[in-house]
Formats: sequence, structure tokens, C-alpha cells
Amino acid sequence: MISFSSKLIEDAMNEIAKLPGIGRKSAFRIVLHLLKQEPSFTHNLTSALSRLRNEICYCSRCFNISDEEICSICASTQRDRSVICVVENFKDVLIIENTGQFKGLYHVLGGLIAPIENITPDKLKIQELIQRVENENITEIIFALSASIEGDTTAFYITKQLKHLKNLKITSLARGLPIGSELEYADEITLGRSIQARVAYGS
Amino acid sequence: MISFSSKLIEDAMNEIAKLPGIGRKSAFRIVLHLLKQEPSFTHNLTSALSRLRNEICYCSRCFNISDEEICSICASTQRDRSVICVVENFKDVLIIENTGQFKGLYHVLGGLIAPIENITPDKLKIQELIQRVENENITEIIFALSASIEGDTTAFYITKQLKHLKNLKITSLARGLPIGSELEYADEITLGRSIQARVAYGS
Repeated sequence: MISFSSKLIEDAMNEIAKLPGIGRKSAFRIVLHLLKQEPSFTHNLTSALSRLRNEICYCSRCFNISDEEICSICASTQRDRSVICVVENFKDVLIIENTGQFKGLYHVLGGLIAPIENITPDKLKIQELIQRVENENITEIIFALSASIEGDTTAFYITKQLKHLKNLKITSLARGLPIGSELEYADEITLGRSIQARVAYGS
Repeated sequence: MISFSSKLIEDAMNEIAKLPGIGRKSAFRIVLHLLKQEPSFTHNLTSALSRLRNEICYCSRCFNISDEEICSICASTQRDRSVICVVENFKDVLIIENTGQFKGLYHVLGGLIAPIENITPDKLKIQELIQRVENENITEIIFALSASIEGDTTAFYITKQLKHLKNLKITSLARGLPIGSELEYADEITLGRSIQARVAYGS
């Protein structure tokens, strides 16, 4: 490991090396790069990071991260305002948006029900979801939660709260073999569920 | 590529992705990490980077980067003050320090003579080196410059300026086969020079 005569370099390296996926060698290369570039380069970087952390807020409707009080998805006139996709956190929103397959709205719960970890329903944005569904002419909610006990519990809990709405369609992401995968590499639970949830050939 | 509803995230990602060795996927992971951590995490990072870029200066003796007017190597009482290792830039100082094999002082030229790129001797810290050698009781200077035309030209130019100092020993890093390398992978120039510069067996 390179030892540094400069405390400034050492401090900067230590902070950079705390970032995910960056070791001390990469951190050193980044420090050299910053020193080689104009001071404005470092200034642009640090101000973008500071603004990100200090100015980001949560959309008051869907609780996705947002630059403003209402996020750009909730504010958009291009989206189908009758469908809500329910996700655990804002990362899931980004991932689903990236598929380009969903044109409705989102609702970010901020976690999944996990009594062992002391995450009870009142700590999540579940009540806010119920209110949106009741007040906003929603015809379908899609659970895009992880395939775990917590995900299933959360979906079950929310479904129970919504059962008085007779016209509401409640769906969940399809589970099954990933596209392009081979049978021999599938785990038993996924394969088992795929058999149970088999679909008509050609559908 | 993931598209972002948030301009703050997009700006931060763009700036992070400009760093060497970091692509957009890594930049995204870093952004998620910053958002997950306490604001103080981002603050520590940005302030370390800002301080690095704004407060770093050059040692007024050896022109190495330094936190203060005299760098810690020049200020140290543990170093051999009669030997100067001449290098192109501060990165070379770090690399040589890392070997733990050199206990003398350094002199950072700030580049190599390259007339085609308009880098003439007066643009480098050569005059400052001559003065140090003349005034500071230096007994040896070691050229640790790259094995290129520019490196050789620079060493030759400095040697000529120092030839009036009869007691000064002028040396250069040994060139030859890297330790642990095999003959068949050595390039011809290195192998050719290794033959010319052969040393007594066992030395």
C-alpha cells in the first residue's frame, strides 16, 4: 500500500474508498485524476453530490424520491392514472421504469412488513396507498414486491385492506423461469412455482 | 440505460461517471449508496475532495505536492539530505516511496523536455535543481525518469549543466529484465539493453 506524505491526499483517498466497488487503487487513480484536472472539475463533482444529498425529497403522493414536491411521474400527463404499481423502494421504480413496459403510477412503501425487524404496517406508506386507491379512481394495483416472506406478507396485508373495493383488480408480477434460462439451472422453488402457475401454450 | 425522473440524480451520476474507471452502472450504485447513508457521509466525502483540490500546494524546495510550504519529505530529519532523486511528477514520488528503498530527497521536474510539444527546459524546474545541487551539499543525483527519448534528453540536458561539479555522482535507475519475467516475453529493446548492460554474475 502506498503511503502518502500528504494528509489531504490520504483523507480524500479514505473517503473515496468508502464508496461501493472502489478499492484503494481506484481511489488513488481518482485522486490523481482530480489533481490533474482544473479545480472546476472537482467543484462540479462535489456540488452535484452535495445538492443530491441535501435537496432530494420525497414525492408527497407516491413517496418516490423527487426534486420537487410532486415527482415527474405523478405530475406527468402521459401516464395511465388508473393503475398503481406498488414497490418497496425508489430503486425498484428506476428498475421498472427502465423496462419501458409500465406506463402507470407508482407507490413506494418504504420497506416491507417484517415484525421481527420491528417494521410494522404503520411504519410503511400503506395507509397512504389505501387512501389513494379509494380517492383517485384506481382500477388496478400491481404488487411488484420481492418474492420473500416479507413481500408476500405485505401484499396479503394490503389486499385485506382493499377487499371492500369490489371493482379493483389486484395483480402481482408473474413469477417463473427467467427468459433465456435453462431448466437445469433453475432453483427448485422457482421451478415448482412455474409448474403450479403454468400457462396455456402460446399465450 | 436507466432514465431518471430526478435531475439531481442524473447530474450526480454524470459527474461521478466522469471519474476514471467508473461507468454509469457504478455511478448509479454510488448514488444509491449516498442516498442510503446519512447526509454526513456525503458531506465528509465532498469536503475531503474540495479541500484536496483547493488546499494542496507545491513544496517550495522539491516541487512535490504538499500540504504545507515545505513537504514532509524535505522537512524530515530521517532522510539522507545528500542524495536527490530526480523524477518527472509527484506520482513518481509516491511510487518510489512505496518501494521503501530510497531514503534521500526528491526533485520533481514537472515534466520532461519535449520540444515538439513545446516543453522547453525553462518550463521545467531544472534551474531550481541545479541551484539545489550547487548549494545544498548534494553528493549524488539519481535520474528516475521514464525510458523514452524525452527522459533521455532531459537527463542528458541536466547532466551537461552539472558537469562542472566534479565530486557529484550522477546515476540512473537500472534498466533490464523485470524481476520474475521470462526471456520469451521480454521486448527486443529491453533484452538488447540488458545484454549490453550485463552485470557480473552474483552481484
